[in-house]
Amino acid sequence: MLDVIVDLINKSETIAILPHVSADGDALGSSLALAIVLSGSGKKVKVLLEEEIPQVYSDLPGREFSCLYRKNDEQYNKKYDLALALDCGDAARLASRIELFNTATRNANLDHHTTNTEFAVNNYVDTSSAATGEIIYDLIVRMGAKPDKDVALCLYVAITTDTGGFRYSNTTADTHRIAAELVSEGIDVAKVSRRVFDRVSYGKVKLIGAAINSLELFEEGKIALMSLSSELMKKLETKDEDSDGIINIARNISGVEVAALLKQLDSGEVKVNLRSNSYVDVSAIAASYSGGGHERAAGFTTTATLEQTKNELLADLVGEV
Amino acid sequence: MLDVIVDLINKSETIAILPHVSADGDALGSSLALAIVLSGSGKKVKVLLEEEIPQVYSDLPGREFSCLYRKNDEQYNKKYDLALALDCGDAARLASRIELFNTATRNANLDHHTTNTEFAVNNYVDTSSAATGEIIYDLIVRMGAKPDKDVALCLYVAITTDTGGFRYSNTTADTHRIAAELVSEGIDVAKVSRRVFDRVSYGKVKLIGAAINSLELFEEGKIALMSLSSELMKKLETKDEDSDGIINIARNISGVEVAALLKQLDSGEVKVNLRSNSYVDVSAIAASYSGGGHERAAGFTTTATLEQTKNELLADLVGEV
Repeated sequence: MLDVIVDLINKSETIAILPHVSADGDALGSSLALAIVLSGSGKKVKVLLEEEIPQVYSDLPGREFSCLYRKNDEQYNKKYDLALALDCGDAARLASRIELFNTATRNANLDHHTTNTEFAVNNYVDTSSAATGEIIYDLIVRMGAKPDKDVALCLYVAITTDTGGFRYSNTTADTHRIAAELVSEGIDVAKVSRRVFDRVSYGKVKLIGAAINSLELFEEGKIALMSLSSELMKKLETKDEDSDGIINIARNISGVEVAALLKQLDSGEVKVNLRSNSYVDVSAIAASYSGGGHERAAGFTTTATLEQTKNELLADLVGEV
Repeated sequence: MLDVIVDLINKSETIAILPHVSADGDALGSSLALAIVLSGSGKKVKVLLEEEIPQVYSDLPGREFSCLYRKNDEQYNKKYDLALALDCGDAARLASRIELFNTATRNANLDHHTTNTEFAVNNYVDTSSAATGEIIYDLIVRMGAKPDKDVALCLYVAITTDTGGFRYSNTTADTHRIAAELVSEGIDVAKVSRRVFDRVSYGKVKLIGAAINSLELFEEGKIALMSLSSELMKKLETKDEDSDGIINIARNISGVEVAALLKQLDSGEVKVNLRSNSYVDVSAIAASYSGGGHERAAGFTTTATLEQTKNELLADLVGEV
């Protein structure tokens, strides 16, 4: 099937590359890498984005091939010979670019998500790939090209971000084999890793501090609870995404089996994140509050107060550890 | 030279493997991996340790070949055919086992540290290896063996810990090539990574919270200061190693160029850690307080009070950003 994609590329002169909306490291790295290679082989290529490139990826090579897509702006609405959706699980992730995708002479969908809906005329979905970056690496090699230093950097960023730095369960022997080829092109691994993984906003750091201040352990340290009031979050001027991942601080404490983060929303409702490490099924607890999730990660939202929620939840958790 | 080591092994029946004192993931993983392989080829092998295996590595395969060495205990002081020092930069890192090393019929030193003093009769020091685990992988292959799942897990832990999870500058294409071979044996990458990198003590989490509470930014966010009083650290019952790495919280904040952590010791002295990101030479600042270090990481200790140190240091830093 990858040969079909190579064939589509060979037949096309103008190519639009469309990473998913809210493009992450994998979507952007894959798109820019492919743009560099296609441009190098004489194609007219554009990476069309819904948003500006996030600051963390703003110095990636190939960004000169990218631009913000504006649906109502004439200049973007030309008919491409080929439109490639990258790292998009479904058509909705193309957002305002869906018409452009459907109007192109040919289109294809290159992705690794198990949930991919195969929405294109040509679909190449390899769910064994940890990142779309791995697929693009294979595609580039199949095209007879060898990734140069710039392409290698883009693909390395794609792969390292989607595998949490080679730490998630999607990391395979092939992931490392491809990383070896990319690193051999001369990537400053330490610099890239620091930029991608270590940078943090002041707001997030203050929120981490506040969450730790609220941290309480129960049942000989097997239960860890943290809570954030809306008043506090307003005071710290935190953004919504600042609380992403904060639950893991509690979950990672030695001896903790189950962790909960209670976050009071502006509406007064309380949003609860639950995580467990080994044996507590937090999805069952979440379900009893009309929430959902998986055995080790679940959540729910309630109209009860922060204090009520905490007391009731704690009573439930004590019965589980 | 690796062939010389293989030859020494072939000639020997009893083999002592000696990882460095305060053995870390690389020293332990390398030692246990080699012990499994040597035992499998009929050798009588012991991994002799100065301390108990740290909890984080306590379930590594091959630990049944290890024991605590006690110099004054007769049973440990037999004469081995071969003693192998693993991951030891100098003889002092063998601690109480130095006599046993020198008394063995043959001895060898397998290491990757640039500072290695080549203290053995046979020395194999490969400074291009990110971890001694890479050298042991090569040795095992050279012996004609193939790492099985247990050996692969030990070597993976050795390599991932010494490269900070493939993020430090010592990570090479070979590091990833070897990781690919190891992962293909069936390692639970996510489980191992969480255990090795994510676990944190309650004491450390509380200390992180306290450090964040003290965090102040100056000069439009280019300078970040944190301080920990001895009173506070006593109250939190923190251990000395709990403050390791805490300076990075300040250093990693977007926009910060230079970060300082001021830690009041029990003696009343103040220990200062300095880090910079791009252009401030913190070693020069540390030197002006009779301290030392590198351009991007330095430190000093002073008899001034916490408040005095903070004010004086801040004045110095303002001149640099």
